[in-house]
Amino acid sequence: MNRYWLHAASGELSLARDNGKNIEKESEPQIILLNMEEFQQLEGNYPHRKNLISSMRFIRYSKVEAFHECVQGIIHVPKQGSKKEKEFSFGFYLFENKLFLIEEDEELQEILAKVKNDMFDGCTLHMVLLFICNALIDNDILYLQKIEENLEKVEDVVIKRIPEHFNEVIMRYRKQLSESRAYYEQLMNMGDFMQMYMNRESLVEEEQGWERYMNRVERLHNYVETIREYLQQIREMYQTQIDIHQNRIMSILTIVTTLFLPLTLITGWYGMNFPGMPEFQWKYGYLAVIGVSVLLIIIEIVYFKKKRIWISSKDVM
Amino acid sequence: MNRYWLHAASGELSLARDNGKNIEKESEPQIILLNMEEFQQLEGNYPHRKNLISSMRFIRYSKVEAFHECVQGIIHVPKQGSKKEKEFSFGFYLFENKLFLIEEDEELQEILAKVKNDMFDGCTLHMVLLFICNALIDNDILYLQKIEENLEKVEDVVIKRIPEHFNEVIMRYRKQLSESRAYYEQLMNMGDFMQMYMNRESLVEEEQGWERYMNRVERLHNYVETIREYLQQIREMYQTQIDIHQNRIMSILTIVTTLFLPLTLITGWYGMNFPGMPEFQWKYGYLAVIGVSVLLIIIEIVYFKKKRIWISSKDVM
Amino acid sequence: MNRYWLHAASGELSLARDNGKNIEKESEPQIILLNMEEFQQLEGNYPHRKNLISSMRFIRYSKVEAFHECVQGIIHVPKQGSKKEKEFSFGFYLFENKLFLIEEDEELQEILAKVKNDMFDGCTLHMVLLFICNALIDNDILYLQKIEENLEKVEDVVIKRIPEHFNEVIMRYRKQLSESRAYYEQLMNMGDFMQMYMNRESLVEEEQGWERYMNRVERLHNYVETIREYLQQIREMYQTQIDIHQNRIMSILTIVTTLFLPLTLITGWYGMNFPGMPEFQWKYGYLAVIGVSVLLIIIEIVYFKKKRIWISSKDVM
Amino acid sequence: MNRYWLHAASGELSLARDNGKNIEKESEPQIILLNMEEFQQLEGNYPHRKNLISSMRFIRYSKVEAFHECVQGIIHVPKQGSKKEKEFSFGFYLFENKLFLIEEDEELQEILAKVKNDMFDGCTLHMVLLFICNALIDNDILYLQKIEENLEKVEDVVIKRIPEHFNEVIMRYRKQLSESRAYYEQLMNMGDFMQMYMNRESLVEEEQGWERYMNRVERLHNYVETIREYLQQIREMYQTQIDIHQNRIMSILTIVTTLFLPLTLITGWYGMNFPGMPEFQWKYGYLAVIGVSVLLIIIEIVYFKKKRIWISSKDVM
Amino acid sequence: MNRYWLHAASGELSLARDNGKNIEKESEPQIILLNMEEFQQLEGNYPHRKNLISSMRFIRYSKVEAFHECVQGIIHVPKQGSKKEKEFSFGFYLFENKLFLIEEDEELQEILAKVKNDMFDGCTLHMVLLFICNALIDNDILYLQKIEENLEKVEDVVIKRIPEHFNEVIMRYRKQLSESRAYYEQLMNMGDFMQMYMNRESLVEEEQGWERYMNRVERLHNYVETIREYLQQIREMYQTQIDIHQNRIMSILTIVTTLFLPLTLITGWYGMNFPGMPEFQWKYGYLAVIGVSVLLIIIEIVYFKKKRIWISSKDVM
Ligand SMILES: [Mg+2]
Ligand SMILES: [Mg+2]
Ligand SMILES: [Mg+2]
Ligand SMILES: [Mg+2]
Ligand SMILES: [Mg+2]
Ligand SMILES: [Mg+2]
Ligand SMILES: [Mg+2]
Ligand SMILES: [Mg+2]
Ligand SMILES: [Mg+2]
Ligand SMILES: [Mg+2]
Ligand SMILES: [Mg+2]
Ligand SMILES: [Mg+2]
Ligand SMILES: [Mg+2]
Ligand SMILES: [Mg+2]
Ligand SMILES: [Mg+2]
Ligand SMILES: [Mg+2]
Ligand SMILES: [Mg+2]
Ligand SMILES: [Mg+2]
Ligand SMILES: [Mg+2]
Ligand SMILES: [Mg+2]
Ligand SMILES: [Mg+2]
Ligand SMILES: [Mg+2]
Ligand SMILES: [Mg+2]
Ligand SMILES: [Mg+2]
Ligand SMILES: [Mg+2]
Ligand SMILES: [Mg+2]
Ligand SMILES: [Mg+2]
Ligand SMILES: [Mg+2]
Ligand SMILES: [Mg+2]
Ligand SMILES: [Mg+2]
Ligand SMILES: [Mg+2]
Repeated sequence: MNRYWLHAASGELSLARDNGKNIEKESEPQIILLNMEEFQQLEGNYPHRKNLISSMRFIRYSKVEAFHECVQGIIHVPKQGSKKEKEFSFGFYLFENKLFLIEEDEELQEILAKVKNDMFDGCTLHMVLLFICNALIDNDILYLQKIEENLEKVEDVVIKRIPEHFNEVIMRYRKQLSESRAYYEQLMNMGDFMQMYMNRESLVEEEQGWERYMNRVERLHNYVETIREYLQQIREMYQTQIDIHQNRIMSILTIVTTLFLPLTLITGWYGMNFPGMPEFQWKYGYLAVIGVSVLLIIIEIVYFKKKRIWISSKDVM
Repeated sequence: MNRYWLHAASGELSLARDNGKNIEKESEPQIILLNMEEFQQLEGNYPHRKNLISSMRFIRYSKVEAFHECVQGIIHVPKQGSKKEKEFSFGFYLFENKLFLIEEDEELQEILAKVKNDMFDGCTLHMVLLFICNALIDNDILYLQKIEENLEKVEDVVIKRIPEHFNEVIMRYRKQLSESRAYYEQLMNMGDFMQMYMNRESLVEEEQGWERYMNRVERLHNYVETIREYLQQIREMYQTQIDIHQNRIMSILTIVTTLFLPLTLITGWYGMNFPGMPEFQWKYGYLAVIGVSVLLIIIEIVYFKKKRIWISSKDVM
Repeated sequence: MNRYWLHAASGELSLARDNGKNIEKESEPQIILLNMEEFQQLEGNYPHRKNLISSMRFIRYSKVEAFHECVQGIIHVPKQGSKKEKEFSFGFYLFENKLFLIEEDEELQEILAKVKNDMFDGCTLHMVLLFICNALIDNDILYLQKIEENLEKVEDVVIKRIPEHFNEVIMRYRKQLSESRAYYEQLMNMGDFMQMYMNRESLVEEEQGWERYMNRVERLHNYVETIREYLQQIREMYQTQIDIHQNRIMSILTIVTTLFLPLTLITGWYGMNFPGMPEFQWKYGYLAVIGVSVLLIIIEIVYFKKKRIWISSKDVM
Repeated sequence: MNRYWLHAASGELSLARDNGKNIEKESEPQIILLNMEEFQQLEGNYPHRKNLISSMRFIRYSKVEAFHECVQGIIHVPKQGSKKEKEFSFGFYLFENKLFLIEEDEELQEILAKVKNDMFDGCTLHMVLLFICNALIDNDILYLQKIEENLEKVEDVVIKRIPEHFNEVIMRYRKQLSESRAYYEQLMNMGDFMQMYMNRESLVEEEQGWERYMNRVERLHNYVETIREYLQQIREMYQTQIDIHQNRIMSILTIVTTLFLPLTLITGWYGMNFPGMPEFQWKYGYLAVIGVSVLLIIIEIVYFKKKRIWISSKDVM
Repeated sequence: MNRYWLHAASGELSLARDNGKNIEKESEPQIILLNMEEFQQLEGNYPHRKNLISSMRFIRYSKVEAFHECVQGIIHVPKQGSKKEKEFSFGFYLFENKLFLIEEDEELQEILAKVKNDMFDGCTLHMVLLFICNALIDNDILYLQKIEENLEKVEDVVIKRIPEHFNEVIMRYRKQLSESRAYYEQLMNMGDFMQMYMNRESLVEEEQGWERYMNRVERLHNYVETIREYLQQIREMYQTQIDIHQNRIMSILTIVTTLFLPLTLITGWYGMNFPGMPEFQWKYGYLAVIGVSVLLIIIEIVYFKKKRIWISSKDVM
């Protein structure tokens, strides 16, 4: 357990390693980093603590809940390719002049270090929570940018040929984007709630801060939606590519079949063993068959051209 | 019929088996569990009772209706794979200091036992109703989690091969998820209504409780939507798999046909019975036919490779 | 023309067949059933009567319009398979203490009889209009239930085979459901408007009544949407069934072609009339051809199995 | 330029052909019909006149803009098959007691004549503008009805066979409906704005009028959406028809190929020129080949029936 | 760095090239054009300047943020085919009586020149910002018009034949339109925010101006949506064209195969070398084979016509 003092005057955080023995007695604002077990065994009366603990047993989404005396919530950050190697989550519990941050993954230490730089004189605990939320999405734009660039490469491949394993690749992106979208939706709901709450408590500065947070998250959310739409367009292009490819293949099959079956019939015809077939008697019989065959081929080619059976590569757009 | 006393002071429920004879006379809050018939034959003046009875004749959705004197409604819980074996429904009728719970399926006894633990001093009947609603969705997240995991297995199958009976399986999930979605939509409407109602009656604590309930249900609803989207993505992947498979099959057909028809024509040609065909005279006639055939095959293979007729498994993404 | 008295004290309707001569003079609330012609020729000053008449010339949707002095509107009930044999419509015109019901189809008599049972002491004309609206949708849930059950039968057929005339059947349902949806949307708009109007006129009881009506219609509307989604799912399943069927057919074609074309080439080859083909000299030539043919077939079958050309019915999900 | 006087007392319009010389001096409400050039050269101080003129240079949509002193806007009526032969547009400029109507197409004269009938005592210029807007959509319902009927004919064709030029026809309707939808959306925005404006200016009667206008336009808009959905359903039916047709064709191809290729192999086999083939020695060789061929055909037909390769017309739904 | 004086009295901008030395001391409203570096090194206390600078490091969208003391934002104008050759962006920072415009691309000089014409007496800096925003979208309608016309040409091509490189062309338009849509959505959000802000600051004139701006942007946004829908319709038409083309090809293949395979079987049959085939003995054997072949062809053609295998070009809609 790490306990931080928030010096109201200077807006600075200082670490106080006393294993949380004197939490209760302090009157200064404090930020206490601890894990689930420590939070459960914390002495003192913390209203609705049980509710947060039971929520944290099985974390699937980010949320915030306000009770009469305290605000509590969970933030669940999905794994994001570029920066983070794994997903992580933490709970927060804001009660009187104490902000508890409950986590198992030891990711918050680093984030708190980042947040320290943003702090100013008269910074409240509500503000610190906002700064933490802001720090969590600080590099997300770069991560989304990266996904978009990767999809551009996929598009370039698809436009040239029909790639193997397209489905697996697309499915992976779809899941990733669905997850991001859900994440931002939950953060938007959270931000919305906090804005309302700050308004009710008449904390104007905090309200404006949460509003800006909301707008930032919404822009990320819209970016995700744009990428999702782009992914959808690539998928539809792939579908069309397959359809065109199929069309090409069938054209070849049809042309080949139509060219050869009649000729094969002719040769079959004169392969019959009927005695006294007049054509065999005729002097130019064999030449006539050659002529008819050539003629047939010419007629068919003209017909195919006219009917545009083959999607000509000259029909450029 | 089971009658429970709600001791306002201690927030405890105690069972009073007197077959409902003295319901009217009590001034303490009571919870009365009974079936349709008992509710119909209940003595005393219960306004709009007829309305609830006629609604319960044919239950299709959850709803709540407020009248001037009473609040009444129906909750219809769909069958959910994991925990419940069958769907069930019950009506509730909140009038003065009495909460009637009307059901045929005897599922509520168990739920009331669970609810008992949540009760506290000064707990009102409105609170009890909220606790019951909360108890009903307590394990739903696990159930949805289960569905999602099953769908992941389906995805793994589809990515490898085109399974039989895919349509039946997908259809079953779709129905299940449609049902869940409708269920949560109705609960959200209910929660919304109750929140409004509590606000109008100036029951602040109850209003906050219903708001938290609403948010819980909305998160479940959003989870259902996410799973539905996932299911849709699996379906689209399956479609694409079929299209690719078809493409492969047609490629084989086209290649085989294009390879063999010309050769067959050649053999047919020299199977003709025209007398005096010059090729037969020629010494190297047979060798020439062999040579032409081999040449033809080579040309065709080169052409197919160049035109990418076959979706090569080397075109990895 | 049928004129009804609404006795405010007892909440009863009594018929007064005097051909509408004394309408003007009465001070009691009245409900007057009449047809378009009678309404047009009605003596007395009825504001905006012309507007209603011109609206009724060409009825396509249900609507309600409020003027300063009167409320008027049209209800257009679409044909619904189970109960009603044909669509019908009527106009209403609520002015001072008179409710005019204008129709050509003589359907309202029956509905008014049903409505009589709901009436109570102090029942107003606004209430009667609400009761009529409620009576109109009383059995709709059963009708929608019927459609859903029929669609379940369609699904069962589609899951087993590709039925003829699927398109016609689906198109019929789609139209029916589109019509129902539009109908409920219009009723919701109407209910919404009436609720607002009652609120403005400070008729609390009526407002609550119209709110409940709105919610009832919305539930029906949502039910229609659920059925529409179900229909859509059946359609998509049908599409997939066709795709799978096509895939099967093409597999057969490809397998058959790939099996027989090479063999046919072999037989064609040895059907050529070249003199002195060495194979014919060889003693085991014929046996060798048989052997090669059998070998070819075995290789192809192994290849097809490995490449999963055929969607095996053992690949159960 | 045509100048009309609006006599407030009688609610009548009278024409005053004086070429707009005395516009400025009048104190009575006036409606002035003129073209762009005349409007530009109008003497007097008309605020934000430049804004309207520049908007009218390039008209693409209907809009209304309110400034501190004046209300101005543009209405762009798309070509609608039945009644109008071409699209037309006009601007309006409402300033003090003057309503300028600016157009090049001379369509408004006729509309003003229609509007005259609706005018009443104390009719304001705002009312006249509303009446003009109402007159513009008066026959639209009939026009949309016409489109719907035409689409029903298209549906009847598609259900029977796959028509040529379907794409062109559908594309034409789609464009038409997109245009209509955009038109009504813009009118709804306009109506909404005017309603707000009237509310702000405390013109209750006008506000109610614009509200009714809004509702009328919304119903038309919803009708367009219904037709668009119907069009979409026809398109999807057409798609399915093509898929089924393709399925049929492929079934024929597969059946024919599967029936004939084995037989052709047999005949090819016994067309080989191997000396001493034992079958030729056998007395019943030829009969056996006939027998085997017939047997093969029977087996194949049974197989096809069992596997439902052919979509039987007996599988009626 | 270019510094402009805004003379409040005359509403005129005059350039003051003093390299920003006296910015601080002025009491007149000023517009200062400068680049990122200059803005960073600006002396004086500019609250939240760091926030804008860090936002401008990586510009992806247009946004505006209000702090207690200042309004700041970024506008990112995408490349638009017709007029602009490249995308550009700039930041703005409105603090006290100074409007800083920060950009690297030197595009604003030109825009400011345009804006000068719109300025009037008593024009505020807020107004100037609005005028700049308006100037940025002044020609967008022509640009969108251009895209629509190009798509009409694409449609004309697609309706006649299946063009090559359709996918690439469509993808390019899709991206362009997605970008435009996102751009206008961001501008709408900005306009919305500014309107709210002006309302809070009680700047009525400015609020109305931003409202008109919002409506202009919304119309452009709706136009983009209409074009997107049109693009979608062209894509769907292309899909259908491919399906129809495939259908045609398969019809040809099926007809050719069905015509020739039976005849080929017959010729194969009589190419068998069985000794003593009775048909060869029969005098009219050869004639009979000719007759049967012709009959077969006739029967098949009749069958194809009846079953509408071929999509006849006489089946005009
Ligand atoms: Mg969004
Ligand atoms: Mg958006
Ligand atoms: Mg978007
Ligand atoms: Mg998607
Ligand atoms: Mg599509
Ligand atoms: Mg496809
Ligand atoms: Mg939701
Ligand atoms: Mg959502
Ligand atoms: Mg949702
Ligand atoms: Mg979601
Ligand atoms: Mg779905
Ligand atoms: Mg799709
Ligand atoms: Mg498909
Ligand atoms: Mg709903
Ligand atoms: Mg709905
Ligand atoms: Mg639904
Ligand atoms: Mg649909
Ligand atoms: Mg589909
Ligand atoms: Mg399909
Ligand atoms: Mg609609
Ligand atoms: Mg709509
Ligand atoms: Mg609507
Ligand atoms: Mg729809
Ligand atoms: Mg559409
Ligand atoms: Mg299709
Ligand atoms: Mg819009
Ligand atoms: Mg639109
Ligand atoms: Mg839109
Ligand atoms: Mg799109
Ligand atoms: Mg489609
Ligand atoms: Mg397709």
